[in-house]
Amino acid sequence: MSTLAMIEAAAQRLQGHVRETPLLSSPFLDDLAGRQLFVKPECLQHTGSFKFRGAWSAVSALDEATRQRGILAFSSGNHAQGVALASAKHGVAAVIIMPSDAPKLKIENTRALGAEVVLYDRANESRETIGDRLSSERGLTLIKPYDEPQVIAGQGTTGLEIAKQAAAEGVTTADVLVCCGGGGLTSGIALALEGHAPGLRARPAEPDGFDDAKRSLATGQIQTNSAMAGNICDAILTPSPGEITFPIMKRLCDPGLSVSEEEARHAMALAFTRLKIVLEPGGAVALAAALFRKTDIAGDAVIAVASGGNVDAEVFRSALDQFA
Amino acid sequence: MSTLAMIEAAAQRLQGHVRETPLLSSPFLDDLAGRQLFVKPECLQHTGSFKFRGAWSAVSALDEATRQRGILAFSSGNHAQGVALASAKHGVAAVIIMPSDAPKLKIENTRALGAEVVLYDRANESRETIGDRLSSERGLTLIKPYDEPQVIAGQGTTGLEIAKQAAAEGVTTADVLVCCGGGGLTSGIALALEGHAPGLRARPAEPDGFDDAKRSLATGQIQTNSAMAGNICDAILTPSPGEITFPIMKRLCDPGLSVSEEEARHAMALAFTRLKIVLEPGGAVALAAALFRKTDIAGDAVIAVASGGNVDAEVFRSALDQFA
Repeated sequence: MSTLAMIEAAAQRLQGHVRETPLLSSPFLDDLAGRQLFVKPECLQHTGSFKFRGAWSAVSALDEATRQRGILAFSSGNHAQGVALASAKHGVAAVIIMPSDAPKLKIENTRALGAEVVLYDRANESRETIGDRLSSERGLTLIKPYDEPQVIAGQGTTGLEIAKQAAAEGVTTADVLVCCGGGGLTSGIALALEGHAPGLRARPAEPDGFDDAKRSLATGQIQTNSAMAGNICDAILTPSPGEITFPIMKRLCDPGLSVSEEEARHAMALAFTRLKIVLEPGGAVALAAALFRKTDIAGDAVIAVASGGNVDAEVFRSALDQFA
Repeated sequence: MSTLAMIEAAAQRLQGHVRETPLLSSPFLDDLAGRQLFVKPECLQHTGSFKFRGAWSAVSALDEATRQRGILAFSSGNHAQGVALASAKHGVAAVIIMPSDAPKLKIENTRALGAEVVLYDRANESRETIGDRLSSERGLTLIKPYDEPQVIAGQGTTGLEIAKQAAAEGVTTADVLVCCGGGGLTSGIALALEGHAPGLRARPAEPDGFDDAKRSLATGQIQTNSAMAGNICDAILTPSPGEITFPIMKRLCDPGLSVSEEEARHAMALAFTRLKIVLEPGGAVALAAALFRKTDIAGDAVIAVASGGNVDAEVFRSALDQFA
């Protein structure tokens, strides 16, 4: 069960440890979006994505004895880095199980942040089996990437900041587009907005072909993706919305949006030129939706959460080559 | 005469119009710098550089009748964009005199922000002559890029934020490295720190060969550069420290630092990889000094002001090609 009270409690635990990211804007992007466009750049968060919020929330919520036995996580990269740094700052060990085809930068960073990285073959091995073995051998506590109430609570603190910052900009009614994998960030923000800014409505943004959240919202039932790879937006390719996150999204979210890989790259280039921030493809889909799905959005303002910036230089260069 | 009181008054006028930029950091950069390294990313400021602060301060300080006659500025780019947007937001006309070899992006942006751009040939024309003519014909008020008390006051608000944010990080003693052209930002920050965080000391950072501020501080007399072009750090190539800025710097600044073009590009690549921000070469020299002049810096912490991010994609790509 995830609640506003849990998000507010997480915000207390995160105070002084998590960065309050600003709300960015550019008159050039307003013109392209056809309305006021605000971007919440969680790429500027510690470890380069919002995942540090949920990781800190979950690690800090454990009782001391449990935490001292160590932390376990599965992740293609951003959750990995978040859990690695949150564990290191709490002085406890972390083991991260990562697919061997995850972006190089994310694997390297996770190791450099002090975690033990166990690589597995996405096609032929089960990360759950590896995780169960490690967990029972060492007494590690698994922190799931999204279907975990304290993780959702941590991600929801992004929504508390959005509510406050949007009000300061005079924005009380707007769609809040959120890059969506398993729905931890989307559901957390939706809960925070329900309590603190009911005129702001969360909507998941996804890559075309991996739009499980959009289809799940449209049908009212959890839908799955047929593939788990084959899209540039690696950070947000998940099989389906979570068992905990989806009911929250179903109750609170407006319809989902999806964008092409090319639109995600275009948004990366515009974020470079106009906002001076570095986004990874999966972190740019909400901005892409704000720019390229504008007829599916209502109102005078829109807020896009840019969820992460952990991109290899080659991928970033290719976006600049094509669009900047 | 520039004073702390003017900076505090400017901060009042800037409230709600200028973005408070966060203080960023990365454990990877701490390792490289050999101490805690904090970066103040003014690339995230409106128009992509700190210049919007001084422009807003100066435009907002004019009496209404004077302001309505319009604004004039000379600039290779960042001051141009700052003055253009500050004027537009005040609803008054701006004419910007720019060298014809300024970065394309800066010229285009200045026009798109509503200013009339007058290009001149840096080698064969005097921007002062053109400016005098336009000013007398149209009654425009010239806002100088640095040697102007209200501009210095606006830039100094960066220092007020640094003082507050460093204290929140527990940092009360540190060098504050500032990308330095004519010294408006450096002198403004120095004044703000003198009043609000006397343990923080401003130091100018410049490109090798264009280190007029460093040499001026070393000799106690204003020194000039022999050239005004021929370095990638276009934003901060100025002939010498200003008549107003230098006495402030002489009284308050610790010795200057200079870095190579290659070091500036390297810092751009590290800011991309580790901070997820886009810096222009001239906006990266303070970070480069923090990373590559560490034996010239004392203490457990250092703060680098990243002054701007208005870089053409080709220049950015070349930094990634070499260092990321």
